[in-house]
Amino acid sequence: MSISSSSSAFLAPPHISSRQEYVRLQAKSIGVCRCIARPEEEKTVVYCKGYQTKVSRNANLSKLQAGYLFPEVCICHVARKKAAHLLKYPDAHVISLGIGDTTEPIPEVITSAMAKRTYGLSTLEGYSGYGPGQGEMPLRAAIASTFYRDLGIEEDDIFVSDGAKCDISRLQVVFGSNVTMAIQDPSYPAYVDSSVIMGQTGKFQKDVERKNGSIIVFDSAYAMYMSDDNPRSIFEIVGAKEVAIETASFSKYAGFTGVRLGWTVVPKELLFSDGFPVARDFNRIVCTCFNGASNISQAGGFACLSPEGLQAMHQVVSFYKENTDIIVKTFTSLGFNVYGGKNAPYVWVHFPGQSSWDVFGEILEKTHVVTTPGSGFGPGGEGFIRVSAFGHRGNILEACKRFKQLYN
Amino acid sequence: MSISSSSSAFLAPPHISSRQEYVRLQAKSIGVCRCIARPEEEKTVVYCKGYQTKVSRNANLSKLQAGYLFPEVCICHVARKKAAHLLKYPDAHVISLGIGDTTEPIPEVITSAMAKRTYGLSTLEGYSGYGPGQGEMPLRAAIASTFYRDLGIEEDDIFVSDGAKCDISRLQVVFGSNVTMAIQDPSYPAYVDSSVIMGQTGKFQKDVERKNGSIIVFDSAYAMYMSDDNPRSIFEIVGAKEVAIETASFSKYAGFTGVRLGWTVVPKELLFSDGFPVARDFNRIVCTCFNGASNISQAGGFACLSPEGLQAMHQVVSFYKENTDIIVKTFTSLGFNVYGGKNAPYVWVHFPGQSSWDVFGEILEKTHVVTTPGSGFGPGGEGFIRVSAFGHRGNILEACKRFKQLYN
Repeated sequence: MSISSSSSAFLAPPHISSRQEYVRLQAKSIGVCRCIARPEEEKTVVYCKGYQTKVSRNANLSKLQAGYLFPEVCICHVARKKAAHLLKYPDAHVISLGIGDTTEPIPEVITSAMAKRTYGLSTLEGYSGYGPGQGEMPLRAAIASTFYRDLGIEEDDIFVSDGAKCDISRLQVVFGSNVTMAIQDPSYPAYVDSSVIMGQTGKFQKDVERKNGSIIVFDSAYAMYMSDDNPRSIFEIVGAKEVAIETASFSKYAGFTGVRLGWTVVPKELLFSDGFPVARDFNRIVCTCFNGASNISQAGGFACLSPEGLQAMHQVVSFYKENTDIIVKTFTSLGFNVYGGKNAPYVWVHFPGQSSWDVFGEILEKTHVVTTPGSGFGPGGEGFIRVSAFGHRGNILEACKRFKQLYN
Repeated sequence: MSISSSSSAFLAPPHISSRQEYVRLQAKSIGVCRCIARPEEEKTVVYCKGYQTKVSRNANLSKLQAGYLFPEVCICHVARKKAAHLLKYPDAHVISLGIGDTTEPIPEVITSAMAKRTYGLSTLEGYSGYGPGQGEMPLRAAIASTFYRDLGIEEDDIFVSDGAKCDISRLQVVFGSNVTMAIQDPSYPAYVDSSVIMGQTGKFQKDVERKNGSIIVFDSAYAMYMSDDNPRSIFEIVGAKEVAIETASFSKYAGFTGVRLGWTVVPKELLFSDGFPVARDFNRIVCTCFNGASNISQAGGFACLSPEGLQAMHQVVSFYKENTDIIVKTFTSLGFNVYGGKNAPYVWVHFPGQSSWDVFGEILEKTHVVTTPGSGFGPGGEGFIRVSAFGHRGNILEACKRFKQLYN
């Protein structure tokens, strides 16, 4: 996701019809991407009878709801297909390798620290009320020294948050609607959705070259999973502090998907075109629209960065990387071309000439394994399915056994 | 805060100058409210030398930064004055009765439940990853039955959040920039700031009557503090489900200011002008821009609503209400007219004909007690200071003793 300074980068429908019939209507999907244009899956949009206020619906949200952008319907579709499958096969052992949700327990060195902080909140000495919106300074300092040592990133460049997804939306609020977002294809759906919500809609533009002077938002949520020589942080690249923001998370390192803790680096060197520091506006949004991550979660984050915590996180990461290897080897041995899996625990399996949704459906029907159709991440994902490596080892092995039965 | 469907409701400066000198500039404050127009307190706006990207700054944030709206500078001002005071009197026992930050420990019945959930996260059985963005269903159900029994509010109308302030900003994103916000005066600064951030700027309009058909956003964060016959929830009023949203919080009931947990009620009966349910758009924002409150905080919220938890919360509330009574009695006995204090733990003391900032300064200088100038909450607060009743009992008593010495 990078940002330059004019407007419009996505698919806008020529006309979002304003409906005057206050009954359940079948809305036709509008769009070009397969995952929402499936004719047999028309969406039901609910308009209700009853008292109507005089407040107009936000047009940005109508556009999102209309589902003309690829990610919108994909996740719902997958969930709906899974639910239907469970109804059809109530006794099946369905294995979910769809969304990237962690499954392994949080290491005790980390939960002990959170429990200690929690008990402390019941004492006069250990109680604390509102913390700084930007996070507690010892945690900010620990993040800076653990992940950005020698990169010139300082503790006051670190903004602790309740997760990368939340920070991505806060960044959208910082930049507002008068910017153009360029988003890679395939991409994480929240990048696109949060852009549309802020009003950054326009035509889908393929192969557009952007001018220099953009701001790069770099999502490093999987940095600890990387196994090749690419930079773990964008700030390893000389000059990046003047052009980049980095967002990151404890979710996939320590199993914090439910605990909620992440951070964003906005270097003080990053300036708008008028010389105003971006960090000052981000700080303002953090203070106005957010009141800091939970102090208990922050105690957990601090424990993650102790020597024992780091070791425990590496073990968690290694476990999911082993899962990834098992999946990669399985599909490779079956003759598939496999992409990804090196720097993130997701495996992209190529089914040339086939529809992602058809492959997804066949795998679900015949193996009871939920994957994600690649086209759900953008047109570039068509012809692929994405297999998540988050899962208990037994489930990963069982899923791979079924893949072998299906494709051998 | 209520919303109708056109635009503009606040003070817009005639011109926000775009600065071309990339040096530290002294920016003149622009505005009509005393709390930002203090000539001796000119703000320093920093523009930096160095590489500038080509991304323009969000004009909404420039407007906010320019500080022409009353709340912007107030909190910073108070903090700055307090810091200067501490430098001047390093040995003084400064008592903070400014912002509403809780001071009393969280009852053990609640922290025990959070610690139990935390330890559970280290086990296979107790681990959970991403939870529903709207909150865990047992908590939603418990909130509905505890606070909205017999009011027709159901568990799926409840959206659990990381706090009321965060939900207020999410509501702004739902409504977008093409609505008019009408905000009471005096008001909680975040209502105004979050409106400006979304681009809802305009002239300050006094005594404007709004048409019917608005949506009311009702902040019930202090409902448990109420001691008169006014409704605790707006949904006690017949028909409110068709016109109102209610936001609420555990912060001031259980000391969760740092733990972060609140909720918002968006009844399914609330419709936009085209009949589309507001709850569906709010749900969309919650799922896209937020990933749910921390599961540990949610375990705490659930414990709050057990019989023991409710009793413990009532004790916390009673303690702060006793503080409130002590402050009210003190100022009343000194001959002041006192407002508030009945339905929230804040006491508004009237100093007719005096400037809020002058009174604030005199109290700080002579008693070492930090209050908040009423004008910081809007023009209607001029001539008042607001005294928060959040504090240890000893500090409240000591502050009142000093008030008596000053004003007797």
